[in-house]
Amino acid sequence: MIYLDNSATTKPHPDVLKSFYQVSDTFFANPSSIHQLGGETEKLLLKAKQQAAQLLHVEEDEIIFTSGGTEGNNIAIKGIALEHQNRGKHIITSEIEHPSVYEACKSLEQLGFEITFLPVDQNGVVSVKELEQSIRKDTILISIMHVNNEIGSIQPIKEIGEIAKKHPKLFFHIDYVQGLGKIPLAFANSGIDLCTMSGHKIHGLKGTGILYINKRTKLFPLFHGGEQERSIRSGTENVAGAVAMVKALRLIKERENVEINKMKALRDLLKIELEKIDDIQINSPEAGAPHIMNFSVPGIKPEVMIHILGEQHIYISTKSACSSKQTDESRIVSACGFNQERAKTALRVSLSYENTEEEIRIFLTKLNEAIQQLKEVME
Amino acid sequence: MIYLDNSATTKPHPDVLKSFYQVSDTFFANPSSIHQLGGETEKLLLKAKQQAAQLLHVEEDEIIFTSGGTEGNNIAIKGIALEHQNRGKHIITSEIEHPSVYEACKSLEQLGFEITFLPVDQNGVVSVKELEQSIRKDTILISIMHVNNEIGSIQPIKEIGEIAKKHPKLFFHIDYVQGLGKIPLAFANSGIDLCTMSGHKIHGLKGTGILYINKRTKLFPLFHGGEQERSIRSGTENVAGAVAMVKALRLIKERENVEINKMKALRDLLKIELEKIDDIQINSPEAGAPHIMNFSVPGIKPEVMIHILGEQHIYISTKSACSSKQTDESRIVSACGFNQERAKTALRVSLSYENTEEEIRIFLTKLNEAIQQLKEVME
Ligand SMILES: Cc1ncc(COP(=O)(O)O)c(C=O)c1O
Ligand SMILES: Cc1ncc(COP(=O)(O)O)c(C=O)c1O
Repeated sequence: MIYLDNSATTKPHPDVLKSFYQVSDTFFANPSSIHQLGGETEKLLLKAKQQAAQLLHVEEDEIIFTSGGTEGNNIAIKGIALEHQNRGKHIITSEIEHPSVYEACKSLEQLGFEITFLPVDQNGVVSVKELEQSIRKDTILISIMHVNNEIGSIQPIKEIGEIAKKHPKLFFHIDYVQGLGKIPLAFANSGIDLCTMSGHKIHGLKGTGILYINKRTKLFPLFHGGEQERSIRSGTENVAGAVAMVKALRLIKERENVEINKMKALRDLLKIELEKIDDIQINSPEAGAPHIMNFSVPGIKPEVMIHILGEQHIYISTKSACSSKQTDESRIVSACGFNQERAKTALRVSLSYENTEEEIRIFLTKLNEAIQQLKEVME
Repeated sequence: MIYLDNSATTKPHPDVLKSFYQVSDTFFANPSSIHQLGGETEKLLLKAKQQAAQLLHVEEDEIIFTSGGTEGNNIAIKGIALEHQNRGKHIITSEIEHPSVYEACKSLEQLGFEITFLPVDQNGVVSVKELEQSIRKDTILISIMHVNNEIGSIQPIKEIGEIAKKHPKLFFHIDYVQGLGKIPLAFANSGIDLCTMSGHKIHGLKGTGILYINKRTKLFPLFHGGEQERSIRSGTENVAGAVAMVKALRLIKERENVEINKMKALRDLLKIELEKIDDIQINSPEAGAPHIMNFSVPGIKPEVMIHILGEQHIYISTKSACSSKQTDESRIVSACGFNQERAKTALRVSLSYENTEEEIRIFLTKLNEAIQQLKEVME
């Protein structure tokens, strides 16, 4: 199998699964139970939190364990909106956000909020100037993604953070789901108040995630209850999930340090070879993330291509998995100003540290063959 | 180890863990990915949903997989509140709800909702008549728990359902977290619109759960995003978690059918023997759930008792795990009209099908010894 759909999800690392299994089996008590078994479990949870904090260079109680990226994004956006609506009901985001940010913002329109969706340029990047100009007195939140999941464009988070710092009354949230483990991000003095991460994109488990929330940030919790996770995310803690999340985080950080250039080289190889193929149009920007390469093959339905490659056990995707069952045009590729045909025929290859040059070469050969085959059929 | 804290959480069944492991390892693809690997994973998810529907005698698309009971309760309560607030802002619940219902309702007060918290009698049961009288034109939701987690009282869900049916404009939600696997509940024609279940209370995994939502019920999702789970709960599906949840559900349903009388006998034994001990006051009602026995030992701090028993690897609890770190008085025992001393010294034994008569007898002996020991110290 050649799995090149790592932005949709990754294969759990065996050690991550093992951690989950062991904790579930041995430390099954409720960490809120005051007996010794509960105490041991609570200690384990705290240790996981400490490790996560160390790995991310933040403080321990700025880590909230969640069930994933969609939860993190929704807690951040709706939580700030509901808590601070008396101060203002304006939110700034972009046109190329993941649905879990985009639709969360849209849903708030129903509750009387006003959303500014910033456009992007051909490289899929927002204008910092435009962002600054769109800040109003009643703006309470800026939510901008770090790495885009379809084309891999990277937003100027640092610059936006500087602007956010000049407006201490508003909060700045970033969706770091695709960037984690590929592009390091500093939180200290960054202006970032909230940051969403997801386990299953870094060889962790589905149903796990982390939301970073700095200490000045108050929000309206989506889950009220037993006051777990500093009352931000009540519910019996999924301790095994938290330990597994932190294991995945540690493993990916190790690889990020050592293997990122290898991944960049694979992406470069992909790009060079794709550009040699007639008709193919590269949609990913030059300065994009190292693991995402988006391109269009005009005239060929992406689902057909995915099926042909899939029969050969090569797995790539069209758009993001999360929107692949809706309309056939990519909202993201369109937002970059590319025409409809291009937006309708986009394919995405997304890498992990597990992928090899050999796999990329096989993929390229099979892609080429498939294009020829389909062209002949269509002629 | 004698584990008698099964209402806080249960030990995962080995087959449940095995299912989780296998699915995570083999069917790791994103079920929304349109390639063959995604298709296979999606099929597995659909099969899990079908099985859950069969086991609960509901329809397939009335099953929503969640991350647990707290999430289910919050989706139900806030989801109905936010969606239907234009029709009315009045909600009816009870004084003895779990914090995930109680605090979720309280939080809505901040958003302008009005909550009626119904009192309970000495048996911990609401008055159906009072409930009916408290329904107003602007009532949009009744949220009542099935089995109470601290004392095991059972609410008259059937009768409340009949009342709810007479008011088709309001929704009826039940928290079935403690009842599942111990007391069967029929959904068809019951008046129940939403029903919360949690995996880790039935030897499933933490981080898993089911929310039943019948088809007439529209709510404002807490998680917007990729429109998974009929758009009610977006987010990459935790397929392994869903399969593990359904496995746990199947296993507990099998035992419920066969072993419920064995569990009842254990509870009767507990009750008879506890009543023989001087000073002990039983807080659980006669007609309570088969797995919960709550009692007070006035004069003895519950944390001390729990610690002494814990040293002998016998685990029981005080109040519910979810509120055990807050004030030392049980809101539930107080609501039943018992005095402060009794509410401050409550202990809970909670059973699972794994517990044996021998374990109960050892517990009783050790409890007796501990009471004598503590009395001597205090004299
Ligand atoms: C950029 C981005 N944000 C958020 C999400 C949602 O995360 P999750 O799948 O963990 O809900 C995804 C992936 O689906 C993503 O790629
Ligand atoms: C009656 C009741 N409702 C809800 C919950 C919350 O469920 P979970 O622990 O899965 O969040 C619990 C247990 O904590 C409970 O006992």
